[in-house]
Amino acid sequence: MRHEDRLDQYVRSVDEALETYIPAVPMLPQARLIEAMQYSLFAGGKRIRPVILLEFCRVSGGDWETALPFACALEMIHTYSLIHDDLPCMDDDTMRRGRPCSHVMFGEATALLAGDALLTAAFETMLDPGVSPSLDPDRVRRAAHVIAAGAGAYGMAGGQQLDIEGGKPGADPLNEAIGVHSLKTGAMMAAAAQAGCILGGATETQCAHAVSFAKALGIAFQIRDDILDVEGDSDELGKTAGKDAAQGKLTFVPLKGMEECKALVASMTSGAIGFLPAFAGDAAAGEISFLTWLANEMMNRSL
Amino acid sequence: MRHEDRLDQYVRSVDEALETYIPAVPMLPQARLIEAMQYSLFAGGKRIRPVILLEFCRVSGGDWETALPFACALEMIHTYSLIHDDLPCMDDDTMRRGRPCSHVMFGEATALLAGDALLTAAFETMLDPGVSPSLDPDRVRRAAHVIAAGAGAYGMAGGQQLDIEGGKPGADPLNEAIGVHSLKTGAMMAAAAQAGCILGGATETQCAHAVSFAKALGIAFQIRDDILDVEGDSDELGKTAGKDAAQGKLTFVPLKGMEECKALVASMTSGAIGFLPAFAGDAAAGEISFLTWLANEMMNRSL
Repeated sequence: MRHEDRLDQYVRSVDEALETYIPAVPMLPQARLIEAMQYSLFAGGKRIRPVILLEFCRVSGGDWETALPFACALEMIHTYSLIHDDLPCMDDDTMRRGRPCSHVMFGEATALLAGDALLTAAFETMLDPGVSPSLDPDRVRRAAHVIAAGAGAYGMAGGQQLDIEGGKPGADPLNEAIGVHSLKTGAMMAAAAQAGCILGGATETQCAHAVSFAKALGIAFQIRDDILDVEGDSDELGKTAGKDAAQGKLTFVPLKGMEECKALVASMTSGAIGFLPAFAGDAAAGEISFLTWLANEMMNRSL
Repeated sequence: MRHEDRLDQYVRSVDEALETYIPAVPMLPQARLIEAMQYSLFAGGKRIRPVILLEFCRVSGGDWETALPFACALEMIHTYSLIHDDLPCMDDDTMRRGRPCSHVMFGEATALLAGDALLTAAFETMLDPGVSPSLDPDRVRRAAHVIAAGAGAYGMAGGQQLDIEGGKPGADPLNEAIGVHSLKTGAMMAAAAQAGCILGGATETQCAHAVSFAKALGIAFQIRDDILDVEGDSDELGKTAGKDAAQGKLTFVPLKGMEECKALVASMTSGAIGFLPAFAGDAAAGEISFLTWLANEMMNRSL
């Protein structure tokens, strides 16, 4: 299968599954809450975390379709984090993915609740005994636990706390920026890879390599985001370009300069790819694997 | 064992377990986030949902101590909901349990994240394979799923959405108030009872009775709350008395009057207690069971 086709298949499957997990229920009294959840969930996200989970499940020997509830849960958690990050008391953004932010469309209270409800729905979806009855309950428990840990105070939420606090006096800014984004972006990338491995039945060694791959990729991805924030066009990005730097966030470009940042993206990406041979049989001899291709695609993106 | 002693034992065990699940970590860069989580978690809550879960586990034949991660998860979820409900964009409260609200102490952004992180920590705690290795993973999955469903868009978060939207034109206000509070309070009470039953190995019939008990108790509890909001004293309540009514919330007292509300509390409570004989052996002949005693205590509370 061509890599582009596999990516399409994953993204389409995630989108279809999300619609069954978070269906429209116009007759319910709390229909507006569910409408707000859908509004942000179906806003054209790239579904990178779900794709990483599904592919690590597959290359670990699992059936990726059984992992769809977990892939979708990652997207629900990612979406909740964007809704809450955009709120006036956080980054106070108004545009996201080319559309008004949730709180602009639905008001702050409903946006707050839509985020809360998406985070909760992630666990409801992963743990539903009816959704993937063929999955071993112990793997379900461990995969969902890894995702919870990646999202919590020692992972993504902790990273967001550091982000709002900004740089601390006396600390080295590059180390700080890497620390923030290891938690804010890297923790959920790593959780995606690890959960995919657990669901697919990878060995512990493979799990460790998958986590190292995803952490390095997460940093590269974040530096690439900062480059786009500086070089990009608001229309094309779908959000306000230059905003991170203007808000005094810990971003890489002002610290290291554009050229060094581009070199960092390239070297972190090739470092990440170096962990992939742990998954033997991932690609035929002489071909590059899907994950190698995906990592390179992510680093060359303009969006 | 005396009922008072059992209640003390449960509450003490939950408090001790919470301290091990959410420990202070002053050296971590995101220490302030964890401090905010602890601030609200250890603010003197009554731990009613945890107690209901632990007791239903016990009377279903389980070892209540193995259920402590689930009991603590309920309290984390309850605490997150209070932090978010108090935010300026929701109920805009300043006092809770006799102390400044989280956002008054820590700022809105950290309060928002502390709620998010507590909700996430609930699932991390329930699903941690190291916390209760003796629990059957399938029971873990089902109990955690029931709790996620109780907290989400079709449960507590849905109820909060209805609460912020207020009464709708043309609807019957008493039915609406019961609908809101069935979700906002009843859904997590029911999840507590059901999860306790699942963990303890109750029959499906017992589960159904436990859920009916908890739903009725949840309504009675909420009406009792409304009575206290009208009759109570702000100092004693630890929050602003009369606030709900002043904000135009769907409360029971203005709808039905004080006397009818008190009668409703009594009749809903005795209705709830009527489901308890499904748990035979819960009390020796001639004695009242712990849950019967607890239900009566909850309805006679002044706090």
